[in-house]
Amino acid sequence: MARTIDLNADLGESFGPWRMGQDETLLELVTSANIACGFHAGDPDVMAETVRLAVSRGVALGAHPSLPDRQGFGRRPMALRPDEIRNLVLYQIGALAGFARAAGGRLVHVKPHGALYGQAASDAAMAEAIAAAVRAFDANLILVGPAGSQLVRAGQAAGLAIAREGFADRRYEPDGTLTPRGRPEALIEEPAEAVAQALGMVERGEVTARDGTVIPMPVDTLCLHGDGPDAAAFARRLRMELAARGIPVAALGGWLSGAA
Amino acid sequence: MARTIDLNADLGESFGPWRMGQDETLLELVTSANIACGFHAGDPDVMAETVRLAVSRGVALGAHPSLPDRQGFGRRPMALRPDEIRNLVLYQIGALAGFARAAGGRLVHVKPHGALYGQAASDAAMAEAIAAAVRAFDANLILVGPAGSQLVRAGQAAGLAIAREGFADRRYEPDGTLTPRGRPEALIEEPAEAVAQALGMVERGEVTARDGTVIPMPVDTLCLHGDGPDAAAFARRLRMELAARGIPVAALGGWLSGAA
Amino acid sequence: MARTIDLNADLGESFGPWRMGQDETLLELVTSANIACGFHAGDPDVMAETVRLAVSRGVALGAHPSLPDRQGFGRRPMALRPDEIRNLVLYQIGALAGFARAAGGRLVHVKPHGALYGQAASDAAMAEAIAAAVRAFDANLILVGPAGSQLVRAGQAAGLAIAREGFADRRYEPDGTLTPRGRPEALIEEPAEAVAQALGMVERGEVTARDGTVIPMPVDTLCLHGDGPDAAAFARRLRMELAARGIPVAALGGWLSGAA
Amino acid sequence: MARTIDLNADLGESFGPWRMGQDETLLELVTSANIACGFHAGDPDVMAETVRLAVSRGVALGAHPSLPDRQGFGRRPMALRPDEIRNLVLYQIGALAGFARAAGGRLVHVKPHGALYGQAASDAAMAEAIAAAVRAFDANLILVGPAGSQLVRAGQAAGLAIAREGFADRRYEPDGTLTPRGRPEALIEEPAEAVAQALGMVERGEVTARDGTVIPMPVDTLCLHGDGPDAAAFARRLRMELAARGIPVAALGGWLSGAA
Repeated sequence: MARTIDLNADLGESFGPWRMGQDETLLELVTSANIACGFHAGDPDVMAETVRLAVSRGVALGAHPSLPDRQGFGRRPMALRPDEIRNLVLYQIGALAGFARAAGGRLVHVKPHGALYGQAASDAAMAEAIAAAVRAFDANLILVGPAGSQLVRAGQAAGLAIAREGFADRRYEPDGTLTPRGRPEALIEEPAEAVAQALGMVERGEVTARDGTVIPMPVDTLCLHGDGPDAAAFARRLRMELAARGIPVAALGGWLSGAA
Repeated sequence: MARTIDLNADLGESFGPWRMGQDETLLELVTSANIACGFHAGDPDVMAETVRLAVSRGVALGAHPSLPDRQGFGRRPMALRPDEIRNLVLYQIGALAGFARAAGGRLVHVKPHGALYGQAASDAAMAEAIAAAVRAFDANLILVGPAGSQLVRAGQAAGLAIAREGFADRRYEPDGTLTPRGRPEALIEEPAEAVAQALGMVERGEVTARDGTVIPMPVDTLCLHGDGPDAAAFARRLRMELAARGIPVAALGGWLSGAA
Repeated sequence: MARTIDLNADLGESFGPWRMGQDETLLELVTSANIACGFHAGDPDVMAETVRLAVSRGVALGAHPSLPDRQGFGRRPMALRPDEIRNLVLYQIGALAGFARAAGGRLVHVKPHGALYGQAASDAAMAEAIAAAVRAFDANLILVGPAGSQLVRAGQAAGLAIAREGFADRRYEPDGTLTPRGRPEALIEEPAEAVAQALGMVERGEVTARDGTVIPMPVDTLCLHGDGPDAAAFARRLRMELAARGIPVAALGGWLSGAA
Repeated sequence: MARTIDLNADLGESFGPWRMGQDETLLELVTSANIACGFHAGDPDVMAETVRLAVSRGVALGAHPSLPDRQGFGRRPMALRPDEIRNLVLYQIGALAGFARAAGGRLVHVKPHGALYGQAASDAAMAEAIAAAVRAFDANLILVGPAGSQLVRAGQAAGLAIAREGFADRRYEPDGTLTPRGRPEALIEEPAEAVAQALGMVERGEVTARDGTVIPMPVDTLCLHGDGPDAAAFARRLRMELAARGIPVAALGGWLSGAA
């Protein structure tokens, strides 16, 4: 029995004069946009434009808040107190929601970025701070996190709808965490293998970890990366395979609600 | 016939480890708080705390957006395009509104800060960009600007309620602009003179400019500065004088609406 | 009688995860590198790498200080006091000189970037502040500015060697200033025309302004832009034309010293 | 046999409009100034002024580099790669050295700030990166770190003179590290106790840890904090006690050189 799947991408990651990603192309292929909020990438101009594009394409809007580290692209872990985490997430959600509102759209989900996402996967206090910020802003927002993570648990405990995210092109460790970037096997470069990993998560709710173990990995949304040269080609191929199997692709807000 | 007057103060201007202002004291004395949004001062932690305090004291919440210049405290004019102005104002309003929402409050007004306020007083394109941002976020927000300024005109043209702001302790030029900081006569240091200037604007809608000319200066809100050592004493004295004259002091949202 | 000419390029303008320019290619073609110092572009990692590359290619090192405006790439004029200008230039020169020293190189010149360059061309106080910073750091540094500008005059008045810069692919106004970016004719897109403009400045010390007037424009260094797709091809063509005319191309430090 | 001791203080920790510390007072009492370099505190204007003051008082100049975290005042640990650490330290040393040079002074020492200091105390790779940056800039600089730390070991291994720092008013753990701020006993509030701790380190090279253990803690320099209201009174008292015992107080550069 095929379940519905959302396809998301991290967008709006340009900054000032610097361009990044293939936003226009990806917006034709995904159902949810995680939009940078100015802390790791994005600036008010980039945010306004990205929100405008997403709304015009009918792609669901999500905030993609980060640790305050633009030079490090939000990928360098920082030791922040839970109240600092809560406040910086709230700040970024609010900022993005303002652009959504101005563009006639509305925020549907929140997906932490980079080290914030990674730290909150295993750090319960940080996860709870993020969930608290999301809940305080709008209890109807969907929190996106990795299956089985503290982030998902904290979201559920806070009464939020949560969406479990899987990665087609990232390797998994036997404990269900992502193989750290920097490790040679971290990225799955072969498209066929990435498609197979994605389908396994969607259809069977499982993934083969780096050591060959098959582990449970049920997902509600798949992340498509926009920085590789073949990102669009891969996304098209994945959508075709999903269609061929009769698996509906739709934004989270349409079919996911309440604690998952 | 005495009209109602609002008293506002710029609050939440601490940043990280650095403290500024006497927020707790001023919150007992004003009816509206203009809260820094992280671009010239404030950070997510300071914003959360300032909003919490203002809500708990029943003081109306306003966003106090700025040019992106923390070192210069938003006081150094910058040449930005109107779309850049619109987007940075929208970003900051959204960020502050998020804290308001999380604290069970709501945003009532927007008052640009420092050079943004000063430039928009005379630069029509910049004023229109600010008004457009406010309107796009929420057409019910009140835009605060100096009487007779482009900012007030742009707010009215955008269909916003506007509040004309007067300064008790800043000197006015014959053309109605503020004598620039840095000029020796820019600040009115004598409390009695500042009180008299405030009362003149409230009761008669006029002020005596630096050259002795009496010019029209009708006001809906008076700005109280929090950085001087005697700020609280002055605010108390002003409130007493207003009370003695039967002039009600109340937040803008209660009595001002629609284009003024 | 052909004089020596320096070829310079603005390099190290990547930031964090964002790449910009074709530094490795340009370093094969220029004799002087203007390296971003972290205020409009560049960061400590980019600076270390750019300095290392320039030293390894034998390209002369220069600091390329900017107004503090990363989002605006240092291109948005700001109203700063002369002492603020002096200190931010000194900060950036020092930071870059540290990388030069660590890489076994030394700083040869300073060329202000973007709006700082543009404002200092006509603003004497800003130009003097820049010259004072350069002089205070090292009286042997060469200050690069547009011919006939306040920047060049201030450098000379401070006893610095100055280098007059010309632009092959930027249009000139009759008063010798650059046609502002944003204007349609600002860029000379036709390579043959840009080469001709460069040769006219080098050989005859003159340029044809936007209105057809021929104005004096003696130059010591030509700026090659690295952001266009054909930047390298253009630079190669220009070098060939200079070689064909027997005009030596060499870094400023080798042939320019004392007040020009 | 009394050895010479240096007294240092962290100075120049104001930023933009925000003041911090009692720099002028402390400059009368210390022999070495650790000057913030703009990453956790300080800005080009504050740095220029602080360097000028220190030079005019004959206080030795040191760079006080930090992780890039102004809001967190450089106190929040970050996971940076060694090459990132090396480059950000080099950047900051260079920037400060520029102001030293412009003021007719010279840099004598480098003391990492906050979390950078704390992380480098136990993280060998980070310590080596800092030592490499110092050495690459100037092999004659003195590196300041806690006795027995990785930072001191890395400095010695790099062939740098090192100065072991002790804290009069911070509690020590039995392993020689500082009791983390945030713990209630972290600060020694009683002046007599702080003086006694300082004298024990200077005269006997030992300190009594939080659990009562006496551990070795030989020091070359004592850190005086400037943020408490009684900082100056304490510094005066400490200098009197040192004088009474015939212990000379002098800047590091005068008596410390080569690997300690």
